[in-house]
Amino acid sequence: LIVEIINTGSELLNGRRLNLHQQWLCQRLARLGYAVNRQTSVADTGPAIETSVREALGRADLVITTGGLGPTADDLTRERIAGLVGRSLSEDALALENIRRFFQSRQRPMPERTRVQALVPEGALVLPNAHGTAPGLALHVLPNAFRADARPSWLIMLPGPPRELHPMFDAQVAPLLAEKLAPSGPVATHTLRTTGIGESLVEEKISGPLRHLLTAGLDLGLCGHPGEVEIHFTARGRTAPRVVAEAVEISRAELGKAVFADGEESLESVIVRQLAERKLTLALAESCTGGHLANRLTDVPGASAVLLAGLVTYSNAAKQEFLGVQSATLAQHGAVSEPVAREMAEGARAHTGADFALSVTGIAGPGGGTREKPVGTVYLGLATPQGTLVLKQLNPYDRETFKRVTSQQALDLLRRKLLGD
Amino acid sequence: LIVEIINTGSELLNGRRLNLHQQWLCQRLARLGYAVNRQTSVADTGPAIETSVREALGRADLVITTGGLGPTADDLTRERIAGLVGRSLSEDALALENIRRFFQSRQRPMPERTRVQALVPEGALVLPNAHGTAPGLALHVLPNAFRADARPSWLIMLPGPPRELHPMFDAQVAPLLAEKLAPSGPVATHTLRTTGIGESLVEEKISGPLRHLLTAGLDLGLCGHPGEVEIHFTARGRTAPRVVAEAVEISRAELGKAVFADGEESLESVIVRQLAERKLTLALAESCTGGHLANRLTDVPGASAVLLAGLVTYSNAAKQEFLGVQSATLAQHGAVSEPVAREMAEGARAHTGADFALSVTGIAGPGGGTREKPVGTVYLGLATPQGTLVLKQLNPYDRETFKRVTSQQALDLLRRKLLGD
Repeated sequence: LIVEIINTGSELLNGRRLNLHQQWLCQRLARLGYAVNRQTSVADTGPAIETSVREALGRADLVITTGGLGPTADDLTRERIAGLVGRSLSEDALALENIRRFFQSRQRPMPERTRVQALVPEGALVLPNAHGTAPGLALHVLPNAFRADARPSWLIMLPGPPRELHPMFDAQVAPLLAEKLAPSGPVATHTLRTTGIGESLVEEKISGPLRHLLTAGLDLGLCGHPGEVEIHFTARGRTAPRVVAEAVEISRAELGKAVFADGEESLESVIVRQLAERKLTLALAESCTGGHLANRLTDVPGASAVLLAGLVTYSNAAKQEFLGVQSATLAQHGAVSEPVAREMAEGARAHTGADFALSVTGIAGPGGGTREKPVGTVYLGLATPQGTLVLKQLNPYDRETFKRVTSQQALDLLRRKLLGD
Repeated sequence: LIVEIINTGSELLNGRRLNLHQQWLCQRLARLGYAVNRQTSVADTGPAIETSVREALGRADLVITTGGLGPTADDLTRERIAGLVGRSLSEDALALENIRRFFQSRQRPMPERTRVQALVPEGALVLPNAHGTAPGLALHVLPNAFRADARPSWLIMLPGPPRELHPMFDAQVAPLLAEKLAPSGPVATHTLRTTGIGESLVEEKISGPLRHLLTAGLDLGLCGHPGEVEIHFTARGRTAPRVVAEAVEISRAELGKAVFADGEESLESVIVRQLAERKLTLALAESCTGGHLANRLTDVPGASAVLLAGLVTYSNAAKQEFLGVQSATLAQHGAVSEPVAREMAEGARAHTGADFALSVTGIAGPGGGTREKPVGTVYLGLATPQGTLVLKQLNPYDRETFKRVTSQQALDLLRRKLLGD
């Protein structure tokens, strides 16, 4: 099967926006067993869209476009593609009703312009949009005048905003592809997620023990993020499930507690789930991560059952006022120190009555470093019913990566505690 | 001038790597006055590279490829392109010397394989690689059999690693382009950023007043994000700076205080800058945004001069303990209410001594909604030296969008206060 992706949007060609759709769609399609042959970005002008879609229809069994389904004058995908494949557009009652409901639920009037998003090319399947107004559209191009062999193509148009595209792909495009355009032969995949260990070391640990499976066709993909490595296993053919299962088992044995989740589950989600299952509660005391840790945990639905409070105590006065850190400790050791991390965690636990409290104090940079405590120095505290531990780390990265890596280390400290380390 | 970029590499099509080259090259080219017409990613197989380069040479005046110049078996760009344009490859003495020096300076033996990187197509300009072994190559394709009009194209091959590509582009490609392929006429661009007004409404307000400039060739691009719309103005030719300046002036007048920044500055950065300039301080009291607001503000370097503390008070007990919210207020009105938002903001201001305090209490969802207070209901409080105001909003989005939009509204409340609203 030949698969192509077309990302429309001038913001992708003038450098204003990073193309995140390419990687996201390629990852999702790979997991479903499809290999993408080509990805193209074109401006959101009529001729550019028409030319690129015509060419792709001439080559591919599946063409996925992103963007250009909105209500404004530069949203041309729907109209130009309908014209290209010779289908008339007409208003779809259900699509219109969805748009009406979207505005009603927000108690806002429906701008007349948005009505254009209910236009659907003749014969297209409408993919309702649970998080916006523009539905996705799926067209079976048959007969396909664009291909020399006249073989049909599927053409799927998805909206540009990620929060609309992602759930639409998972809930509607994936099942549609499974039904209409199944990949050739069975595919088995699995993902393990690790933390506290670098990409090269992960590879070093598992590539030897997996050699016989790699020779037999196992595809191993490592993907490093700040503070985290994803390991993707893919195999094809009759023995695929067995090959992947064996690879996962071997990797788990080699990597041990570094593996924190299977599939898509995030570290913060693992923490919230494990605490909720045991009816345990958590408080946070953050300095240099500035609320990043609280924000990550509260991204998890149900976090309110677990997280009692998060104190972002940037100033020394706030550390004293809200956490009871002693002024003598601050004066003697400085805010970035083992004793202050300890008092912050213990203060947060005592003031909230939580079972556990995590604290973070460090130097995020770019300024504030010294010879003894360079930028990136950080102390992580964990107060528990059995006592308090403090870990020192050095994370000399840019500000956002620092926050991400540091919060990952803090969450992992709690995860390993819950594992009984 | 027609410009195309071709990114080669299987890792771009199986989702293992984010395509950062696309944005980086598009930004650089835009600054130099070139508009990129198309970007393509293909796998690093011979046929895929050859097909995509042949097609691009049939359309473009400038084709830039990335990747595939290394020493390993899947590095095919040099060889395949030389074959395509009918130039023989021969070893370039200077290029070989550069490779030798690279290994010498690192006191490592030169692997025999790396010698292939000194092969240069007949007539190509060699772009030395200051940070690696593979030089870039620039070819003037003349006569150009791939274009119907036989016009020549420039074909520039750059290495894949960003630390090699970036300095090579700046030091060698940019001057080469200025000399050989100057952009047609000057280009002027400007960006305005707005909040509190939707994409359709922005377009409705400005497209009429800008009509004469749009007719004269002004390019207007709108880009909507949660709680924010970017407006990009671009014009070309002798009058470009005047056209863009007039468009910006008209748009500012039409959009008024909805415009919060020019260019790339974020709303949180505007707030930190404005508070720092006036030596004013801020405290935060967050419930449903769960630290998102604190995290955004602390992403800005220098936030510590402005932000005294952020209290993430998820539980009612935490609202009482850290902010002094009255239990009677919670019992009578519920945690998501105007009086609680007021007491949270006033409590945060009083407990920290900050000049301003922002508070947020609401229902992020997916659970917790009622008929009276549906999911997305939120109260935003702002305590100031002159008194406290509270704003009610309805943001019925997924959890992450809810946090983003709500924090945007809270920051905007403070921004408008600082403007003297």
